[in-house]
Amino acid sequence: MNISKIAHTRYTTKKYDPSKKIPQELMNQLIDLLHFCPSSINSQPFHFIVVTSEEGKKRVGASMDEDVFIYNKSKILDASATVVICSKTEMTEDHIRKVLDQEEKDGRIIGAEKKKKTLDLYMGYVNAHLHDTKDINCWMEKQCYIALGALLLGAASLHIDATPIEGFNRKILDRDLELREQGYTSLLLVPLGYHANDDYNFTLPKSRLPKDQIFKFL
Amino acid sequence: MNISKIAHTRYTTKKYDPSKKIPQELMNQLIDLLHFCPSSINSQPFHFIVVTSEEGKKRVGASMDEDVFIYNKSKILDASATVVICSKTEMTEDHIRKVLDQEEKDGRIIGAEKKKKTLDLYMGYVNAHLHDTKDINCWMEKQCYIALGALLLGAASLHIDATPIEGFNRKILDRDLELREQGYTSLLLVPLGYHANDDYNFTLPKSRLPKDQIFKFL
Repeated sequence: MNISKIAHTRYTTKKYDPSKKIPQELMNQLIDLLHFCPSSINSQPFHFIVVTSEEGKKRVGASMDEDVFIYNKSKILDASATVVICSKTEMTEDHIRKVLDQEEKDGRIIGAEKKKKTLDLYMGYVNAHLHDTKDINCWMEKQCYIALGALLLGAASLHIDATPIEGFNRKILDRDLELREQGYTSLLLVPLGYHANDDYNFTLPKSRLPKDQIFKFL
Repeated sequence: MNISKIAHTRYTTKKYDPSKKIPQELMNQLIDLLHFCPSSINSQPFHFIVVTSEEGKKRVGASMDEDVFIYNKSKILDASATVVICSKTEMTEDHIRKVLDQEEKDGRIIGAEKKKKTLDLYMGYVNAHLHDTKDINCWMEKQCYIALGALLLGAASLHIDATPIEGFNRKILDRDLELREQGYTSLLLVPLGYHANDDYNFTLPKSRLPKDQIFKFL
C-alpha cells in the first residue's frame, strides 16, 4: 500500500451517492479496525454505533435539524453507513477491572500478582487525570479520536469515502439513543460510503500549510 | 490491503532493535501522511518533530529521566525515529487567516466573498470552543490524536512498529525544545522502528472487550 497516495487522495465527502452501498465484507473490516483500535492503558473508553438502517439514519439525522447543522444532514441520510463514535462519560476502577479481567481471559495477564500490579499502575494514570490534571473526559475523548484517525485512513485504503463530523446536536442524539443513561456521550459522526458524481469537494485541491511550518527535523 | 489483518497484528512495541532503521522512502510516506492529516475546519493545530539523530533521541529521552517514566526511555533511544506530536497552545484568527490564505493559494477557495464567508464560519466554531464550551485546548489536542490514529495504522501497514507514549515529562521536553515559545506543547511521543527479537509484547495476545460491549448496530 502506498500511504502517501492515500494521504493525498482521501478527502472529506460532501455529497454521497445513496445508491452505492459498502459491501458487508468491507464494513466488517472497518468494524474490526475500530474494535482493535489502541487506547491508553487499553482503557477502551469508547462505544461505536454502526448505523445502516433507514430508520437509524433518520434518528441520527434528527440531531442536525437546526440551522447551524442542517447542511450535514444529507450526508447521514445518503451515506451507506454512519458510525457514531461515543466516549464514556466516567472512567472507574470497575471499568479498568473489567478490562483486566478480559486481558486475563485472553492470556495477556498471567497471575494474580501481575494483575494487581497492573491495576495499581493503570489506576495511577486514571487518578492523575481525575485529580491532578483534571482532564479525564478530554483524555477519554482523545482516545476516541485515535479511532477516528484510524477509521478515516482505513476507509480510504478500502476506497470508501468518509466525512468526519463534529457539527451536530449531541444533547438531542444522546437523548434519543439513551446514551448518557448507558454511560456514553456522542462525540463524532462518520458517514461512510461513496461520493456522488457531483460532489464539489471531490475535485477541489487539498490544501495544507507548508511542510516547513508543520515539521521540524531533529 | 486487508485492514482487519493489520488491526489484529499491529501492536505496541516495548523493545526496539537499534540496528534496524526505517528506509527513508517509508519515513517520507509517514511524513506525508502526517502532513495531509485531516483536522476540524482544516485548522491544522499541530506540529510534528521528527527525531532521527542520536543527539535528538537523547534530548527527547531526557524527558523520561524520572522513576515514573524511565521505563519508556529505551524505546526512544533504540527506535529508528520518534515523532513528537505537539499541539498549538492558542488558536487565533491570525492562524485561521493563514490557513485560508494557503487554501486560496492552493486553489481551494476562490474569491474574496467566499473567503470572508469561510473565515466567519470557521471563527464561529473557534469562538464556540473558546467561549461557549471553553475546551479550545482539548479540541486542538483531539485533532492531534487523529494524526496519532493515522500514524499508528499507516506505520503498521508499512510493517513498521510503533509505540504511542503519553508518559513523559512535557515541561522538560517543552523547555528543552523551546516549544512553548513557539506556541506549541508536546502531547505524544511515537517511536517508530522494528521490534527486537525478545520484545515480550510481540508474542502476547491482543485483548479487547467483547464486541457486544463496544458496538451497537442500528
